[in-house]
Formats: sequence, structure tokens, C-alpha cells
Amino acid sequence: MKIAFIQTGGTIDKDYPKATGGYAFEIAEPAVKRILQRVNLNFDWEIVSILRKDSQDITEEDRQKIRDACERAEADKIIVTHGTDTMIETARELCSIKDKVIVLTGAMKPEKFIDSDASFNLGVAVGAINVLRQGVYIAMNGRIYPWDKAKRNSRTGQFVDK
Amino acid sequence: MKIAFIQTGGTIDKDYPKATGGYAFEIAEPAVKRILQRVNLNFDWEIVSILRKDSQDITEEDRQKIRDACERAEADKIIVTHGTDTMIETARELCSIKDKVIVLTGAMKPEKFIDSDASFNLGVAVGAINVLRQGVYIAMNGRIYPWDKAKRNSRTGQFVDK
Amino acid sequence: MKIAFIQTGGTIDKDYPKATGGYAFEIAEPAVKRILQRVNLNFDWEIVSILRKDSQDITEEDRQKIRDACERAEADKIIVTHGTDTMIETARELCSIKDKVIVLTGAMKPEKFIDSDASFNLGVAVGAINVLRQGVYIAMNGRIYPWDKAKRNSRTGQFVDK
Amino acid sequence: MKIAFIQTGGTIDKDYPKATGGYAFEIAEPAVKRILQRVNLNFDWEIVSILRKDSQDITEEDRQKIRDACERAEADKIIVTHGTDTMIETARELCSIKDKVIVLTGAMKPEKFIDSDASFNLGVAVGAINVLRQGVYIAMNGRIYPWDKAKRNSRTGQFVDK
Repeated sequence: MKIAFIQTGGTIDKDYPKATGGYAFEIAEPAVKRILQRVNLNFDWEIVSILRKDSQDITEEDRQKIRDACERAEADKIIVTHGTDTMIETARELCSIKDKVIVLTGAMKPEKFIDSDASFNLGVAVGAINVLRQGVYIAMNGRIYPWDKAKRNSRTGQFVDK
Repeated sequence: MKIAFIQTGGTIDKDYPKATGGYAFEIAEPAVKRILQRVNLNFDWEIVSILRKDSQDITEEDRQKIRDACERAEADKIIVTHGTDTMIETARELCSIKDKVIVLTGAMKPEKFIDSDASFNLGVAVGAINVLRQGVYIAMNGRIYPWDKAKRNSRTGQFVDK
Repeated sequence: MKIAFIQTGGTIDKDYPKATGGYAFEIAEPAVKRILQRVNLNFDWEIVSILRKDSQDITEEDRQKIRDACERAEADKIIVTHGTDTMIETARELCSIKDKVIVLTGAMKPEKFIDSDASFNLGVAVGAINVLRQGVYIAMNGRIYPWDKAKRNSRTGQFVDK
Repeated sequence: MKIAFIQTGGTIDKDYPKATGGYAFEIAEPAVKRILQRVNLNFDWEIVSILRKDSQDITEEDRQKIRDACERAEADKIIVTHGTDTMIETARELCSIKDKVIVLTGAMKPEKFIDSDASFNLGVAVGAINVLRQGVYIAMNGRIYPWDKAKRNSRTGQFVDK
């Protein structure tokens, strides 16, 4: 088994800015790298960094880059880490890719936080991709949704059945 | 979707002893509880504590208790947290349970450790159980194994294909 | 020994916002509370929350409130947690308080981050206040500075000898 | 300012064993190294590893080694990390060293634990050593004790006034 992890940015990768002052986060190194180092994995993997953007800032051109990266990946199992705000839009862009299983995941709190959901969520994506055969899925809130069966509750931020 | 989480003990639940002195760990509250609190889950769940044992100390009588708990659980999706040393033996005991999907998982480092694999591993079990239909599986080292297709490398502690 | 801990805000207390979307932090519950819970302390203490502001937003009126809180505190040992940007300005406002020892501290990374300096920095303040007799001090970067002997390197954010 | 940190072992440095099976901890790399990396320190320091022992196992010969390391250290500010069970005995051995200030500290939970007191305790030692001039001190439970003014409550593990 081989999994390609594709970084696009989003909350999962947010870190405290190195520069002094200011209120904002920076999107930094892929959190996936730190999470996977804590696990003695028995599969091959690679991490490809495509974007470091808040998902509200992802453009159609960016989505094309993500699609290209999925198509180019040797692995037929792909996990895309992504901001939650436009995760479904990116999933739609990817849904016509054939012969691969693609799972999008992310986090409600950055992986750098003590009380982050990032490690668990990435685990959910990896667990599902072991079993799933083909298609595009969302792994959030402990659930696996076919991409077109999920919507987001904009008040709670939770992904729910459509 | 509803998942029953069954605690049996093992490394995942080890904590530093409250008493002074001594070298040993204590098996404490289910780590599952702390992990799930960090995630805004969109499914129902319950945690049932059956044992708090190192898995080398689990007896046949204990395995029968675990089996009873799986059979009694209302949920047809069950995740058993377990020490890694005899995880496969317990899986064998559970394999004749009908109409349920049971995933056993655990950790190489206690959940209380900064660099634990517990959150990720539990996520792997939850991701897989979203998709799997029936049977008994091991979720360790980022992989989902049908229980009778896994063996453990006793030197590295890693679960591998049989 | 009794220490009064006064919360004014700053990086140490920043948390990820509960609301969806957006780039900014929120200043939340005092980090001091979480840090002290991890230590089996052998002194009395209280936490007083005065402000929850980025220190760049602290006004002269706010500084007067901090001063009032220090004067009102029963304890003669006071630790003020504060944003680093204007920590020295607040120290100047407090320097005429008699018969108390006041130590200002804060953090370069929020206490909620895995790699935060908050616990260590608060420890530095507590260790020094055990020994110091009177005056206003800055506890940052592992050093104790009398407030008028420190300046801040605006490029690195580090407090250094004036 | 320069501080020499001397590792002797104890709970602060306990890690989960790499080998499979077993109930016991291992005493590993000095926790001080990991803690100091999270802080942007403005002083010079070195870490010297002398022992990796539970303090109940420290012999008189071991204490002589610790004493030699303190005397040999170029720095006149020395922090010894040590198991709590015999911290006072080692302090007694060091108390005749002239012209140096030596602070012993440790932890009730290993630094590797999420809820460890290690970072805070080390901070307490560093804060006090900024201010103290000479002598041997214990930094535990948020307090600085001259070594001969502290005793340990064997039931709670807390250091208290003698």
C-alpha cells in the first residue's frame, strides 16, 4: 500500500507566526509529516506540498493544481489535507478522476495545538482509504462521506449528511 | 451511526502512577474518552470499560468477558482498545460473532505521551469502521488487517501481513 | 507564601477561535490556571482577570486598571501575565508601587501550543518571586530583568540587557 | 549568565521503553534539552549527563560523581535534575561546594507526558538561579527551599518547610 498526502493548507497546518506582533496565523510545514513520525507505519507514503492557503482563498486555478497533483501521483490512494471552508468545492473538482481513491481531510484546530483533532482526523482518512476502492470522500467529524453526500453546517462547522 | 468503544487496558491507557516511587505504569481511565473530546464527532458512541490489564495478563476468562461485552453492545460497530501483545488472540475469540464489525486497536506509546500514536490509531479504527461491513479487524501501524491476515513482528512490535 | 496572578491578555492566553472561518486568535481563559493545575503547588494563589487584550491595544486607562489590581491584591507577591509588545510600558506604570514584588511575564507562543514557552516562563517568574524582595521585574527568555534594565530587540522579540 | 544543567536521571527523564512488552520506564535523553529548545533563551548553557538513574538507586559513589561534575563546571550557576526520592541527600553532599549556586529540581510526571510539571519546575529553578548568589537549593512544588530547610512528605510526595 502506498498513500500520497497532498498539502493545500487550511487550519490543520496553521502555526503561530515567527514575526513579532500581529494577530494572524501562518500556514507552515505540513502537519501530516509530524503526525506520521509519531506512528510506526507499515505502508509507503510521500508528502507533496501544493499550496499553503486558507481554503477561503483557494482559486479555481489552485484547484486545478490540486487536481493535477492527484492525477500525477503514482499512488492510487491519495489523502488531501485542506481547509474546511471549501473542502466540498475541491472534492467536486476531483470527482471525475478515475481509478483512484481520494480522501479529503483537515482539522478544526491546528495540529500544533494540544487539543487538536488533526491526528485523529488524519487517522480516520487513513483507516478509510485502507478499505475504500474508488471515488472522492470527505473524512471529518469521525465520519466518511462520499463527497456529494456531505454538506457543512455553517454555524457549527460540522460536516453532516446532505 | 453508533460505535461502542470497549476498554480492556494496554499501553494506550497507561498513566504515570499517582503513588510515589516505583518504576511501573498504572492502567487508568480510557484514553478513548480524552481523544473523542478533542473531536466534534458526528456519530453516537458509548465507552464500556471491561478490563484494565496489560494484554499479557489477559486470561481466557477475561476474553470471554470481552466477547460478552461485544455481543451485548447495542451498536453493531465496535472498537476494542487492547494491548498489542495479545491483540490477535482476542481477535480470534471474537471472530465468530455474527452481524457486527469489530476493530481492535491500541498504541505503542500511551495516549498521555506527547508523541503518542493513540489518537491517530483510534482515528484509523473509526475511519475503517465507517466503511467495513462485518468481521473482526486489527487497526495498527496505519493498516487495517482482517484479524487472520495479520501477525506481529516480535522484534519491532509492528503488525505485518501474514 | 501567596502569589496573585493577574491576567491582562497577550500571546500566552491566545486560543483558536471557536467561530468558523477567519485568521485571528481569541484571547481566552488565563493560561496560568491550566499551567498551575499540572503542578502540585505548595503555596497559596489566586488568579484575577483584568483584561484580555493584545498588549498593543492596552491603553493608559487599562494600565491604571492593572495598577489598581496590583495595589488591591492582598498578596505582596504578584505575577502579571502580559503581551510582550508593551510589557515594559506596563512595568513602568507599576514601578512606584511600594512594598510589593511584581514580576511580569508572558510567552512567545500561546500556552495551547505543544511547543509553547508559557509553562517554563511562568515557572521562571515563580522561581524568582520566591527570592526577590521588592520592585518590578520582567521574566522573559530565561532571564530576570529589573524593569528599567531591559529593552526588547524588535527584530527577534527577545528581551535583552539595556 | 551561564548555567550548567546536570542530568542524573529521575522521573523528569523517564520515557516509554522502546522494547516491546514490559511495564517499566526507561531513563532517556535529558528532558532539559527538549524544554530549553522551546524557549528563546538569552543566556549561555550546557547540558552534562552524569547518570540516568532512578534516585532510589543513586549510590554514594554516584553522588561523588555529581559533586565532581558541579565542581568541574565552568559555570557558577548549576541546575541538577534529579529524582525526587533522594534529592535532599544529594543536596547535602553538594552543600560544601564554595562560590557556586546549585539548584536541584525534578518532576512528579515525566516531561514526555502532556500534563507534566517538568517545564514549569525547570523554569522555577532558572528563575531563582537568576537571583540567588550562593548555596544549595531545592526547587520543587513552586517553591525555592534552602536544601536544609526542606523535607519531603512521603505520602503526598510534596516538598514542604522543615
